[in-house]
Amino acid sequence: MFNFAELNTSINFLEEINFPEDLRKLKPEQLPELCKQLREYIIDTVRTHGGHFAANLGVIELTVALHYVFNTPDDRLVWDVGHQAYAHKILTGRKNSFHTNRKFGGLSGFPKISESPFDAFGTGHSSTSISAILGMAMASKLDGNSGRQHIAVVGDGALTAGQAFEGLNNLSPSSGNVLILVNDNNIGIDENTGAINRHLNSINRQQNIFTDLGLDYAGPVDGHDVILLVDEFKKQKEIRTPRVLHIKTVKGKGYEPAEKEQTKWHSTSKYVKIKEPTEGQNKNSLKYQDVLGETLLELASNSEKIVGITPAMPTGSGMIKAMKAYPDRFFDVGIAEQHAVTFAGGLAGEGFVVFCCIYSTFLQRGYDQLIHDICLQNLPVIFCIDRAGNVGDDGPTHHGIFDIAMLNPLPNLQIVAPSNGSELRQCMHYYAKNLHGPVCIRYPKGYSNTDLSELKFLPKTDVAPGMSCLKQGSDLLILSLGNMRETALEVSEEFNKINISVAVYNQLLVKPLNSIILKDLFSKYSLVVTLEDGSITGGFGQRIRAYADEENINIRVFNFGYPETVLEQGTQEEIMDHYGLSANKIFHKLKMIINNRL
Amino acid sequence: MFNFAELNTSINFLEEINFPEDLRKLKPEQLPELCKQLREYIIDTVRTHGGHFAANLGVIELTVALHYVFNTPDDRLVWDVGHQAYAHKILTGRKNSFHTNRKFGGLSGFPKISESPFDAFGTGHSSTSISAILGMAMASKLDGNSGRQHIAVVGDGALTAGQAFEGLNNLSPSSGNVLILVNDNNIGIDENTGAINRHLNSINRQQNIFTDLGLDYAGPVDGHDVILLVDEFKKQKEIRTPRVLHIKTVKGKGYEPAEKEQTKWHSTSKYVKIKEPTEGQNKNSLKYQDVLGETLLELASNSEKIVGITPAMPTGSGMIKAMKAYPDRFFDVGIAEQHAVTFAGGLAGEGFVVFCCIYSTFLQRGYDQLIHDICLQNLPVIFCIDRAGNVGDDGPTHHGIFDIAMLNPLPNLQIVAPSNGSELRQCMHYYAKNLHGPVCIRYPKGYSNTDLSELKFLPKTDVAPGMSCLKQGSDLLILSLGNMRETALEVSEEFNKINISVAVYNQLLVKPLNSIILKDLFSKYSLVVTLEDGSITGGFGQRIRAYADEENINIRVFNFGYPETVLEQGTQEEIMDHYGLSANKIFHKLKMIINNRL
Repeated sequence: MFNFAELNTSINFLEEINFPEDLRKLKPEQLPELCKQLREYIIDTVRTHGGHFAANLGVIELTVALHYVFNTPDDRLVWDVGHQAYAHKILTGRKNSFHTNRKFGGLSGFPKISESPFDAFGTGHSSTSISAILGMAMASKLDGNSGRQHIAVVGDGALTAGQAFEGLNNLSPSSGNVLILVNDNNIGIDENTGAINRHLNSINRQQNIFTDLGLDYAGPVDGHDVILLVDEFKKQKEIRTPRVLHIKTVKGKGYEPAEKEQTKWHSTSKYVKIKEPTEGQNKNSLKYQDVLGETLLELASNSEKIVGITPAMPTGSGMIKAMKAYPDRFFDVGIAEQHAVTFAGGLAGEGFVVFCCIYSTFLQRGYDQLIHDICLQNLPVIFCIDRAGNVGDDGPTHHGIFDIAMLNPLPNLQIVAPSNGSELRQCMHYYAKNLHGPVCIRYPKGYSNTDLSELKFLPKTDVAPGMSCLKQGSDLLILSLGNMRETALEVSEEFNKINISVAVYNQLLVKPLNSIILKDLFSKYSLVVTLEDGSITGGFGQRIRAYADEENINIRVFNFGYPETVLEQGTQEEIMDHYGLSANKIFHKLKMIINNRL
Repeated sequence: MFNFAELNTSINFLEEINFPEDLRKLKPEQLPELCKQLREYIIDTVRTHGGHFAANLGVIELTVALHYVFNTPDDRLVWDVGHQAYAHKILTGRKNSFHTNRKFGGLSGFPKISESPFDAFGTGHSSTSISAILGMAMASKLDGNSGRQHIAVVGDGALTAGQAFEGLNNLSPSSGNVLILVNDNNIGIDENTGAINRHLNSINRQQNIFTDLGLDYAGPVDGHDVILLVDEFKKQKEIRTPRVLHIKTVKGKGYEPAEKEQTKWHSTSKYVKIKEPTEGQNKNSLKYQDVLGETLLELASNSEKIVGITPAMPTGSGMIKAMKAYPDRFFDVGIAEQHAVTFAGGLAGEGFVVFCCIYSTFLQRGYDQLIHDICLQNLPVIFCIDRAGNVGDDGPTHHGIFDIAMLNPLPNLQIVAPSNGSELRQCMHYYAKNLHGPVCIRYPKGYSNTDLSELKFLPKTDVAPGMSCLKQGSDLLILSLGNMRETALEVSEEFNKINISVAVYNQLLVKPLNSIILKDLFSKYSLVVTLEDGSITGGFGQRIRAYADEENINIRVFNFGYPETVLEQGTQEEIMDHYGLSANKIFHKLKMIINNRL
């Protein structure tokens, strides 16, 4: 076996390290060089293959010191939010497959139990780690395993979420051996906000929120001094009760552009680059979030009653534009979806037109508030739900495929799915003027098939009918929800080639349905096909089926969408195709159904 | 107009007070007598008509002082959790209708916007008030209304929930005029738990969690000294930035039995009394929660790997019995559903068999964690979901009618609905031994059609097939989910009388469905009826319909359940009947359908 200890720092340590047991053979003074190599490796790989960037550069020293000092995987280590676990993955057996990170069939961009015994708990959404690690610590205690260490690494941004507080509140001296590492880089994806952030920035070592909650507190310590971290971790290893070590890090550390523009460098995706339109051709194509940003600014300029809320996603949602122009009326509440929803209710009840911008899977965090505070009270809030449908390489934790199912049964609620950016803008204008209760507007991640010139005039689409004919046809009816529009038209073209005439309707409203148009259509077709970028169960298609049943119309309905499975990661197109939602797959499946019926 | 000021304390003040403007005519020294009268009035009314009890007695002085000092309803007042708002309702125009509290068509047991302008925000679930009041305060600020006060009354128990922390974290000097009254009675429904509770009990006036978060703090003050409260509120009225006043109260104050047994006297329902079985006849009939309690104790006695978690509902869920016997293995985590779910995941991942006991609507709070931490990771946790279906007099915020719809699309999950206590016990035993992923067992509030003698031996019901025949029949098939069992049998009896033969199957599993039995049944009947105590949209019935579609079986399916509406309050039976789910209503509707088909 290679003996690192004898080598000088010009050696490529990383090449020889596959598991923490290899790492532990280094001398402490060799760790800085390893960190340097690891940092370069991550910069190179992520710049080539895409992925989360700046957060990973911030925890290189932390990761090396953790695996150096603690006995992973027997000691349990949970990475909150998990997008910063690249160094962890590389050091725990996944260096050689790291280039498959976030690709179809490749490594997950987040820790994943099924991927490695070193991934003690899967993450993706923030602020779950304290609860998870406490569960593991209680398990060790009940099992009589007093030697095992349990470590959660939590960002300061993640501490704004209620669940983190619920976890802290449940730690007590009898909770076993829990070490909470607060990775304080003073930023989330966007600027951090809120009282806890201010508190951490001027923390009193003797008495602070952690000591108030009965926890031992140490720090802050420099998170980029790996030798210091090793010493601190060794001290922490001797304590056996719940405790906090406060570590200061710099997001993007070691890569100057990322240190300077931390939000921009949060994530970099090579896929986005590929999809970027080429010069001269649809040059100004906008993402849905860009359309939201422009439209919200436009609406806010026209009326002082327009306000906006986002839980920690001003850039990602696009709200940042209006927020910069009207800082008093646009609120980034931090990672706090529950608060965001009820706060929206408080403003709406007082007569403001509230746009609450939350990603599809993050709205799952505010589900009770959406029911209890918004829908039951019929408060007029407009939820702009970005990242609905499959989101591509972020994978299972971020695929927004349950939103329609969870929203569908709620009283007073309207659900809208614009099919492009132009329709999104039209919906926002429409509801800003015609709001009588809560509305959810859901749209996918990525490009919106709309360019800047289209945002000069409001489109002619009328929101009220809830659906419109894109293509006439006599043999078969496709009801296409939201972003399935182009796919539906492609399917129709394919059928044209074999002389089957397919009508395509663009379905804007999931609920309420337009019963007049639907009843008329149902009398003309014996086979109705629904397409949606979401779960089949509980989805739009099942509402169409239920409507036909209610009206006692004997018709065959075929629903396309995702099955009840853990959706894979990959490009959005790969995922669509994998689950039979590409035009080609839909065409072939429908052809089979039609042939069976003839 | 009657002049209170001239009167002595033997006068019945309450008789003359209908609105706060009447109250404000009293001299401060007359307030204690009013409080005494109000307390007696509430004791009398609640003991006769049922309702929340002890919490209301604890806030009499607080309520009187609030409406005396502040200019309600222009000043905004939000009662967190809301079950303590009886004195508030009596003093704000609802004294004469107070006897209709919680009855069908009567006053809500909680604040309700549509009921009174004094109810600034509806509540029911805990810990929403800070977010709501901050929304209102921001609205006043944006409207340039600097005089308006915004007050939230939050119990100490409610502070354990993440949302309360999210709200506190979002308060800052620029958030406008917000007064948080911490109503610290040192108990929730059960004993309080957690670090924040310990912190409040030994709070340092100068430096504490509130000051850490940048809030002014005053207190603690005696919450039963109404004259002192008036003085304190007057001082608070002069401050215009976010602040906390810490008030100590006694739950059940002024009624000795309730002060002594606060959990027992949390709520008293006359309806429960009426439904209690009479001597000698089904004497030992148990509630579902009793069956859960007995069974959990039984399982825990047999295996050290059995653990349990409940967010603040040890008594209500029945877990208290096992918790007392095995305090190390059963955890009350406080009002913290998000934490409860992920904590369960942490324990399950380490090989424990975790029973996580959460009410249906409270699980809405842990929805993201259920998806993200449990289902996506396929962790074997058994969720015992009590209060599923309509819950009667607690009304809209507590009706557990969305659970099936929200659970239905989730991967890896099984959903089970036992039809009585005996089946609940059988399910718990079955899954404790046969657990390969997450399971949700949902059952309603109330009696379980099971007596103690039935708990001596495990019933013969086999969980695995997922359904069983209760009654053969040839004309029509009823698939009855869970607690609809007796109703289904009654409907069948009614049809018998008119010579229509109805088969009844008891459906235990919502998912997965038993495709072998179902396919066979679908080939025998042209009309299938589903019954469920839950939302039609996204529910069990729509899964049955989708299954028939998938299998290309042309069959008429008729789904009974609740429509997409805000469900009324009343007795459970009144609600069933109101929405067409009583045996009588189902029978008549089905008869009509059959007649139309013949």
